[in-house]
Amino acid sequence: MKEEDLIAYLLSQKGQKALDEGIGDDCAILVGKGGYTLLTTDALVEGVHFDRRYFSAYFLGRKLAVVNLSDMAAMGGCPQAALLTLGLPSPPEPAWVQEFFQGLLSRLGEFGAKLVGGDTVRNPGGIFLNLSLVGHATWAPVRRDKARPGEIIFVSRPLGASAAALELLQKGVSCPDPLIQAHLDPEPELLLGQALAQKQLISALIDISDGLALDLKRLCRASGVGAILFEESIPFHPLLSGLSLEAPPLHYALFGGEDYALLFTSPPASQDQLTNLTSSLGRILFPVGRICAETGLWLKTRHGDQIPLDAKGFDHFAFGHKPSS
Amino acid sequence: MKEEDLIAYLLSQKGQKALDEGIGDDCAILVGKGGYTLLTTDALVEGVHFDRRYFSAYFLGRKLAVVNLSDMAAMGGCPQAALLTLGLPSPPEPAWVQEFFQGLLSRLGEFGAKLVGGDTVRNPGGIFLNLSLVGHATWAPVRRDKARPGEIIFVSRPLGASAAALELLQKGVSCPDPLIQAHLDPEPELLLGQALAQKQLISALIDISDGLALDLKRLCRASGVGAILFEESIPFHPLLSGLSLEAPPLHYALFGGEDYALLFTSPPASQDQLTNLTSSLGRILFPVGRICAETGLWLKTRHGDQIPLDAKGFDHFAFGHKPSS
Repeated sequence: MKEEDLIAYLLSQKGQKALDEGIGDDCAILVGKGGYTLLTTDALVEGVHFDRRYFSAYFLGRKLAVVNLSDMAAMGGCPQAALLTLGLPSPPEPAWVQEFFQGLLSRLGEFGAKLVGGDTVRNPGGIFLNLSLVGHATWAPVRRDKARPGEIIFVSRPLGASAAALELLQKGVSCPDPLIQAHLDPEPELLLGQALAQKQLISALIDISDGLALDLKRLCRASGVGAILFEESIPFHPLLSGLSLEAPPLHYALFGGEDYALLFTSPPASQDQLTNLTSSLGRILFPVGRICAETGLWLKTRHGDQIPLDAKGFDHFAFGHKPSS
Repeated sequence: MKEEDLIAYLLSQKGQKALDEGIGDDCAILVGKGGYTLLTTDALVEGVHFDRRYFSAYFLGRKLAVVNLSDMAAMGGCPQAALLTLGLPSPPEPAWVQEFFQGLLSRLGEFGAKLVGGDTVRNPGGIFLNLSLVGHATWAPVRRDKARPGEIIFVSRPLGASAAALELLQKGVSCPDPLIQAHLDPEPELLLGQALAQKQLISALIDISDGLALDLKRLCRASGVGAILFEESIPFHPLLSGLSLEAPPLHYALFGGEDYALLFTSPPASQDQLTNLTSSLGRILFPVGRICAETGLWLKTRHGDQIPLDAKGFDHFAFGHKPSS
C-alpha cells in the first residue's frame, strides 16, 4: 500500500470533495474570511530520508523547513507559522539541538514564517522530524488538477542535482559543492510560486519532490490528462555531465527526487505575459513538454521516437533508502 | 535536555512574546480577521506512548485525535482541520490502516474536525503517529499564564484512571473496562473548554496530560504564582480503591499521566456563575486547591500538614515507557 493508495482510501472513506479542499494536493485549503488558509506537513526520517554521516543538524533543520516551504510554494501561498515534532532516539545533545534550530529558524525566517509550537518525543529507532506549516493567500491557490490539453509544461530550473549528489554522498566519494548544496539545502520557489498564482497565468502547479516523471504523472492524473516530455528540452544540472554516475544525467532529471523545482502548465496564449513576469523576477523558465488529452506519459526522444515513460520515482516503502532507478 | 528546556531555548533564540502567541501553551495563537486561529501538534510513538499488545489500530487512531483535541479544549477552541503524519516500520497492512483511520476519523468527526492532508513515511524503529490540529475561536483563547493568588483551582473530573490502567495493561493483568477506556479512549473536554472560554469565568486553563502536579506546576510557572492542593479534595476514580496497584490512588491522581481532564483557575467572585454554567452542561467541577503568591507547589494533607509537592510527571526522555513514580 503506497502513499497514493492511502490517500485514495482516505478519500473513499470520507466522501469529501477532494481537490476542492486541496486534499491530495501539496497543501490542504481552508476558505475563510480574508482569504485562504493553506496547510501542509512533511517528515524527514533518519535512515530513510537522510543519514547523519553527511547531514549535519544545521542542514537538517534547513531541509525540514524547505520540504514544507516547497509545498507552500507549490500552491502559490505565503508561509506564516510552523509546528515542529522532534523525535529523538535518546536525550537530546544540546549542541545538536541548537544547530538544528538555527537551521530550521533561519530557513523559516527567510520566508516570513515563525515556529510557534511543537512536541518533543522519544523515537527509539532514530531521528524523526516532522513539520506542519500554515500559510495564507489572498489570491486563489493553484491546484494540480486544472491542466488542459495543448498547454505547455514548464519546470523552474535544471533538475537532477539532488539525486546525483545523494548517490555520491552515499558512496562516500567526492561531490561538487553546488550539487551537495542542491541536496542538503535546496531552494524553495516561494517568490515564483506566489507570483505565478497571483497573476493567474498558469493552470496547474506542483513541486518536484519525487522526480519530474512521477510528479508530472500526479499532476496529469489529478487533471485527467496526459503529457509528452521532449528529451532535448529537459534541463539537467550542467555539472552532472562531468561526473562518474551510475546513470546518464537525463535519468536523474527524470527520476531523481528532491529537486524542489516547480512544475506547472500554462496555456499557449499566456506565454508573452509569462515571459514578462519571469523576466521581472530575473528568472528563466524551461518548457519541457505538452499536455495531451490521452492519459499517459511519453518521452519524445531526440531521434523523434515517442516512447511510454514509466513514472518511477521515490517511494519510501517500495524502494527504501535511495531514489529508484 | 527536557521538552521544557527545549521550549526555553527556542524562546531565547527568537525574542518572541512567548505566551502572547501561545508559544509554550497548549496551542499557538494566530490573530486574524474574524478571530483566532489555534495550532497544536502531538505525536504517539510505539514503545514510548503505546504498545501494540494492548493498543488496537482503531483506538490508536482515536487516541491520536484525542491528545490533540484535548490541547484545543485547553484553549477553549473549536477544532477544524487536521494533518496526519503516519510513520510505519514496514509497508502498511491494509486492515490495520483501515481500522486506524476509522478510529481517527470517528474522533475528529465527533468534534467537527476533518482530516485534510498528511504525509506517509517509513520509520524503521516502529509506528510513529503525528497529528497537527488547526482550530479557531471567535472569543479570546484562555492561556495558562493568568492565574492569580486567591483563585480556586478546579479539575473537571476524577483523575488517575488512565495511569492505573496503564500499569495493569503493561503487567498483562485484568483491569476494569472503565479504566481501560480511560487509557485507550479518553474523552476530550471540548464543550466544557469552549463554554469556559466563551463565558470568561476562568483565568487560566490547561489540560492534564502529564499528571495534576506537573501540569499545575506548568500553569503556576507561566503565571508566576504558586499553589496549594488539598489532599482531601483531590478526586480519583472510584474504581482505583478496589484494585491491587503499586501505589495508593492519590498517587495516580497526582502523578499519573494522560487524564485529559481540564485544570483551571477561577476567582472566588465567579463561583456562582461558574456553578450555573457547569450545571447547564450537566457537569460538576472539583475544587482541588488555591493559588498562592509564593511560587512553589504544596499538598495540604488530611492531617493538616502542608508539605512541598515534588511535581513529578511523565517525561519521555527521563522515564521512558511508564509514568514516573
